Amino acid sequence: MIIQPRIQTSFDRQSMMATLGAKLVQAADGHATISAPILTGTRQQQGFGHAGLTFSIGDSAAGYAALTLLPEPQEVVTAEIKINLLAPARGDLLIARGRVIKSGRRLIVVTSDVFAQTDGKERHIASLMGTMMPVDL
Amino acid sequence: MIIQPRIQTSFDRQSMMATLGAKLVQAADGHATISAPILTGTRQQQGFGHAGLTFSIGDSAAGYAALTLLPEPQEVVTAEIKINLLAPARGDLLIARGRVIKSGRRLIVVTSDVFAQTDGKERHIASLMGTMMPVDL
Amino acid sequence: MIIQPRIQTSFDRQSMMATLGAKLVQAADGHATISAPILTGTRQQQGFGHAGLTFSIGDSAAGYAALTLLPEPQEVVTAEIKINLLAPARGDLLIARGRVIKSGRRLIVVTSDVFAQTDGKERHIASLMGTMMPVDL
Amino acid sequence: MIIQPRIQTSFDRQSMMATLGAKLVQAADGHATISAPILTGTRQQQGFGHAGLTFSIGDSAAGYAALTLLPEPQEVVTAEIKINLLAPARGDLLIARGRVIKSGRRLIVVTSDVFAQTDGKERHIASLMGTMMPVDL
Repeated sequence: MIIQPRIQTSFDRQSMMATLGAKLVQAADGHATISAPILTGTRQQQGFGHAGLTFSIGDSAAGYAALTLLPEPQEVVTAEIKINLLAPARGDLLIARGRVIKSGRRLIVVTSDVFAQTDGKERHIASLMGTMMPVDL
Repeated sequence: MIIQPRIQTSFDRQSMMATLGAKLVQAADGHATISAPILTGTRQQQGFGHAGLTFSIGDSAAGYAALTLLPEPQEVVTAEIKINLLAPARGDLLIARGRVIKSGRRLIVVTSDVFAQTDGKERHIASLMGTMMPVDL
Repeated sequence: MIIQPRIQTSFDRQSMMATLGAKLVQAADGHATISAPILTGTRQQQGFGHAGLTFSIGDSAAGYAALTLLPEPQEVVTAEIKINLLAPARGDLLIARGRVIKSGRRLIVVTSDVFAQTDGKERHIASLMGTMMPVDL
Repeated sequence: MIIQPRIQTSFDRQSMMATLGAKLVQAADGHATISAPILTGTRQQQGFGHAGLTFSIGDSAAGYAALTLLPEPQEVVTAEIKINLLAPARGDLLIARGRVIKSGRRLIVVTSDVFAQTDGKERHIASLMGTMMPVDL
């Protein structure tokens, strides 16, 4: 699947994504997937992935899912988003899958699920639901 | 003000906080303050601080506010938290101030406000409200 | 499908459900469905169903979805829940479908979607995500 | 304190408020207060006030707080709102106090606290935080 160049460019400009080791796996048709390893430098006090890591890729996957539905010169910003943490972020890789629930003219409601992959098996570790706002560049 | 050693130790064990350049400024009596610069590596695509940075220090300030009220061998984990983003994170320093709204036996409801400081002036950039869960170590 | 008597009894004890004209349609295996008409007395200022109506059946559907997974003498209470409103509540009937995302020992994470039915066609009007807490009776 | 006629009119058009026995106590300068008794018909299964009651007046207080800041022909709708329930709704009267956190051109971020009054003493039973969207009439 081909990611639109403007979406890849937007992702690449987010230095936070590089700091977290995150990669944009897929983004099209109201869906987006981002993965990130649990680096030595992105952990919480018990050695699991930090909630800020899980949030960052969950929020970004939801945002890029929204952006796939917008015309070119626009970007999105997160107006608000909520995260429910379901299990500790432990494993080889975190995978965030975002999708659009409802695309309105003024607001785009999105959701995202984050999974921790260990030996190829996935465990659901977080759900997010939020609101993206289109902004003109 | 003196920060309890176990709280400083817990904070220092969060490698994410070091990656973000975050510091625990204060933690006592149901309140906690964390600050972080907007590093070159923690930005979003327009060059402002990433929502994941704002979230990370806002969530942690809320969590440590809760921890100040718990007896020693316990820790807290975030069950859920919501962030409303009010303005772009631009400035010299972000400051997150967390406090406990209601401390229950099973759950602790918390809130946090994040400010961006520029030339000594503060701008309110985010509000969080969430639920912390005590866990035995 | 048969609804467990203790769940029907719990529902029937909620006088708010009768006031709203709500009915428990289904409750089993981590899922529950509640319907309600848009009564003359449950509207907002533009004549659509009130957000409090949509919330009430969405929250209750999520709660009863959780309750189906708990052993008998327990009840659940809502610790927190968030609602994103997607479209005005207009139509013949509102239908809330709740389901459990993650059933933990201490907390149950739930979601719910509310639809407005008009001439047999459904429109998605709200999504909720929240946390239920088991309580002993 | 005088409530603007258009705000009182908007409130009076919400039939849900009459059904719940709710009254608009105050609305000015980014703040609004709504009270409601715990009627026989607005209870949950244990006889306390229903979460839908607490939500309805908390959401409306937040919405009218936002409306006080908008020019005349506009209304607001709730885009999203989250409620954390802190204690059972028991007592003589519920009182919801809403206020604006941040008034933007496109979105207004609001918060609300709900208290249960018994013998003149107040107990904090819920906190809400959400987003209101101005709409042209």
